[in-house]
Amino acid sequence: MTDIDSTTDTGTSTDTELGLNDLTTRLDKAHVFHSWSAQGALKPLVIAGGLGCRVWDHEGRTYLDFSSQLVNVNIGHQHPAVIKGIIEQAQLLTTIAPSTANLARGEAAKRIVDRAPDGFNKVFFTNGGADANENAIRMARLHTGRDTVLSTYRSYHGNTGAAIVATGDWRRIPNEFARGHVHFFGPYLYRSEFWARTPERECERALQHLERVIQSEGATSIAAVLLESIPGTAGVLMPPPGYLTGVRALCDKYGILLILDEVMVGFGRTGRWFAFEGSGVVPDLITFAKGVNSGYVPVGGVIISDAIAADFDTTVFPGGLTYSGHPLAMASIVAALDAMEDEGIVENAARIGADVLGPGLTALAEKHPIIGEVRGEGVFWAIELVADRETRAPVAPAVMARIKTELLARNLLPFVQDNRIHVVPPCVVTDDEVAEALAIYDEVLCLDLL
Amino acid sequence: MTDIDSTTDTGTSTDTELGLNDLTTRLDKAHVFHSWSAQGALKPLVIAGGLGCRVWDHEGRTYLDFSSQLVNVNIGHQHPAVIKGIIEQAQLLTTIAPSTANLARGEAAKRIVDRAPDGFNKVFFTNGGADANENAIRMARLHTGRDTVLSTYRSYHGNTGAAIVATGDWRRIPNEFARGHVHFFGPYLYRSEFWARTPERECERALQHLERVIQSEGATSIAAVLLESIPGTAGVLMPPPGYLTGVRALCDKYGILLILDEVMVGFGRTGRWFAFEGSGVVPDLITFAKGVNSGYVPVGGVIISDAIAADFDTTVFPGGLTYSGHPLAMASIVAALDAMEDEGIVENAARIGADVLGPGLTALAEKHPIIGEVRGEGVFWAIELVADRETRAPVAPAVMARIKTELLARNLLPFVQDNRIHVVPPCVVTDDEVAEALAIYDEVLCLDLL
Repeated sequence: MTDIDSTTDTGTSTDTELGLNDLTTRLDKAHVFHSWSAQGALKPLVIAGGLGCRVWDHEGRTYLDFSSQLVNVNIGHQHPAVIKGIIEQAQLLTTIAPSTANLARGEAAKRIVDRAPDGFNKVFFTNGGADANENAIRMARLHTGRDTVLSTYRSYHGNTGAAIVATGDWRRIPNEFARGHVHFFGPYLYRSEFWARTPERECERALQHLERVIQSEGATSIAAVLLESIPGTAGVLMPPPGYLTGVRALCDKYGILLILDEVMVGFGRTGRWFAFEGSGVVPDLITFAKGVNSGYVPVGGVIISDAIAADFDTTVFPGGLTYSGHPLAMASIVAALDAMEDEGIVENAARIGADVLGPGLTALAEKHPIIGEVRGEGVFWAIELVADRETRAPVAPAVMARIKTELLARNLLPFVQDNRIHVVPPCVVTDDEVAEALAIYDEVLCLDLL
Repeated sequence: MTDIDSTTDTGTSTDTELGLNDLTTRLDKAHVFHSWSAQGALKPLVIAGGLGCRVWDHEGRTYLDFSSQLVNVNIGHQHPAVIKGIIEQAQLLTTIAPSTANLARGEAAKRIVDRAPDGFNKVFFTNGGADANENAIRMARLHTGRDTVLSTYRSYHGNTGAAIVATGDWRRIPNEFARGHVHFFGPYLYRSEFWARTPERECERALQHLERVIQSEGATSIAAVLLESIPGTAGVLMPPPGYLTGVRALCDKYGILLILDEVMVGFGRTGRWFAFEGSGVVPDLITFAKGVNSGYVPVGGVIISDAIAADFDTTVFPGGLTYSGHPLAMASIVAALDAMEDEGIVENAARIGADVLGPGLTALAEKHPIIGEVRGEGVFWAIELVADRETRAPVAPAVMARIKTELLARNLLPFVQDNRIHVVPPCVVTDDEVAEALAIYDEVLCLDLL
C-alpha cells in the first residue's frame, strides 16, 4: 500500500499541480520496477505519444525514434490503420478463451502462414517472443523425443525459464535453472572465434565447429538448433553466405530440427517478411513477435510446419496460455500486415537499407575511425565502435554512455548496446528522417569521445 | 503458405458466401493451433461478441458465461469503461519500451500497490501469469541465494519453463526441463492425503507434511514456497483455516520466502481484492494477471515487497521483456480497477457468493447425490461430481463430457475440469443470472447421467 506520494493519494492522481512529465516520473520512481536494470539510478525518459518515427513527452519535446523501441515498432508509432483495427475489435470483443474459435484469430493466422514457406499452415499464438521460443522448444523435444537444444552464445531468446537458458549472453548466467541447453559459437567475422579472415573461412569453420559440438554432445540427444536468423541484440551479426544452408544441412544429416527465431528480424525488419527468405533455407519451426503487429498489443507465436503440427492431431499438445490468440492482438496483426502489404512498407525497408541508410552508414564509417564495422540490411544495422581499428578493442562503456547522452540531447532516441549503436528505425522511415539521423550520428561521432 | 482454402484465398477472406460462423470455423481448423489439446477432433465454439455475463456467435446464439473464459473476465465482457480506457490509450500511444516512463504505467502500478498490503510499493509487469511466476521465482532465488522452490502437486502456475515445472498437475510431466522444483501435498480435506477427517486435522497434518518436506530437502536450499492462495484449476481447494498462517510461520522459521500466486483468485474473484486478505498472512511476493484487467489486454506481474525490491536498487535485475508495462495493458488496468471500485464489483462478488450462489449450490448438492462436495466463495466455486458419495469415486470422463454438452445445449458456457464443474461467472453476475444458471445446472443434473 502506498503512502509515499501524498500528492497522488488525494483524488485523481492526474489532478495535481505537478506537470505531467513530473507526475509520470514520480509515479514511475515510486511504483514501477524496470526490466534488466538496477532501479536506483534509473532516469527513464518520459514518453507520452508518438507518430511514425517520432515520439514525444507531455511537454512537447519530440524525439526521432531510431530504436523502434525494442526493435519492434516496424510499422512506426500509432499507424492509423492498426489503431483503427484495435479500436474496432475492442468495440466487438477484447478477449476470449483460446479454446473458442474467433474470426480475428483465424484471419491473423491465415495472414501469417500466407507469408511463410510452403508446408507451414498452423500458428500457435503466445504473448511474446519468449514463450514463442518456449513452445517451439517444447514442440521440437516432443517431435524428436530428444532433449538437448543447441543455441549460440551470442543470442537472446527471451526471459522465461527455457528461453533465458537458450539465450547465450550474460542474461543467462543468473538464470541457469533449465537443463538441456548447450551453447556454441556462431559466425561473427569481425570478432571471429575461429581465427578466420574471410567470410568463406568463417562460414566453413563455424559449420565445422557446430558439427563437432553436435558430435560431441551426441547427435541423437539433440532435438533442435535454435538460431536467430540474424542475431539481433548480440550485434546484428549477419551470417556469412552459406551459413544457414550449412546449418540446415547439418540438421538434416543428424535428424535435428531447425528453429529460426524471427522475433526481432521477422516482418519487415530486414526488408523481407522473414529474414531467412532468399537464403534457400526452410526451418521446421519459426518463432515471431515484435514486428508481426509492431507490439501494439502483446503477442508472439510459433509457425508450425505440417509434419510437426500433425504430431498433435491426435496427441494432446502440452502447452497453452490464457491469452493465446487474444482477439485484440489478432486484430492488430490483421491490420498491421494488411497495411504493411498495402503501403509497401517492407519494400520501403529494403530500399532504405540498400539506397539510403546502408550507403549513409558506410560513409560515416569512412569518415570516423571510431567506427570499426558497419553491418546490416533493411532497417537493421549496427555500428560497432572501437578504441583502435587495428586491435578492434571495443570503446569503453563510459564512451557509449556519453554517446547515448549526446544523441538524446539532439533528440535522437538511439538503441545502444555494448559497444554498438544499433540503427533500427521503423520500416516506414523516410529518406529525410534517415538524413536527419545520419547528421546527428555524424555530429556526435565528431565529438572528442575517446 | 496456405492453399487449402480457395474461398478465402480470393479477395478479402470475409468477402465470401460462407456464413461468418462457418468462415471462422474453417479458418480456425486450417490455421489455428490450440492450447492443451489434440487438434484433430476439436470443434471450438465460435464466439464473436459479448457483454457482461453473455457471449454470442455471429448468428445471434447467446451463451450465459459461467466460465469467465479462463476465469479471467472478472469485470464481465466488454465493460464500457474498460473499452473506453483502451480506445483512449490506443489513440494516444499503444506501445513503448519498458525503459521509458509512461503515465498509464505509473497509474496502473499505483492502483495495484494501493490494494496490496503495507510494504508493497513496486510492480514488475509481465505479459501474463506464467511469466509473473517466472519472475517471482527469479527474485526469490536471487534474494535468498537459494535454488529450490516448493509448490504443491495440485497446482497450476503457467506454461513457461520454470512455471510449468512449478506446476504440480499432469501438465508438468512432459515439460520437466527446469531444475530446482520440489512438490508437496497441500490440504484438500475431501480427498485428504493425510488420512484426516476434520479441517483442523487436515490443516495440522498438511503443515506437518510441509515441514517434513522442508527438513528433508534441507531448509537452507529452499528459496520459496509458491502457492496459489486458493488452488484454482486444481479444484477451488479452499485451504482450511490456519493453513496459510501456518505456511507463513514455517517460511519465517526456515528463512524461506512466500510467493502467493493470485493469478486466478486476485482482483475480486473471491469477493476480496486479494484472496489472502483477511487471512492475516502477508506474502513476500504476489503474482497476478487475469482479474487485474479481466484479460482485456494480455498482462500480468509481480507485486514486490520493499525488502526484495531494495535488492535491485543497485544490482541489475536479470529479467525483462519487451512488453513490460505495455501502455494499452496499463490503461486497461487503470480503467478496470477504477470501475470495479466505483461500481462495487468486488462487493457484488462477495454478496453473490454469500447470499445467492453459495446457498444455491448447497441446495443443488442436497438434491443431487451425484454432487460429492460444493466449495468456494465469492464467484469462485467448484461442484465435485462423484459416482458414489461413500467412496467419493469421481464420475467418469464420459459423464463430464455429456454434462458439458448438455450445459452448452442449454446455452450455458461452463468451466468443466476433471470431475468438476467450476462455477466461476464474472464478478458482475446478477441474482437473476445466477438463478438462470442454477436452473440449468439443476436440469442437467436431473438427467440420467451415470
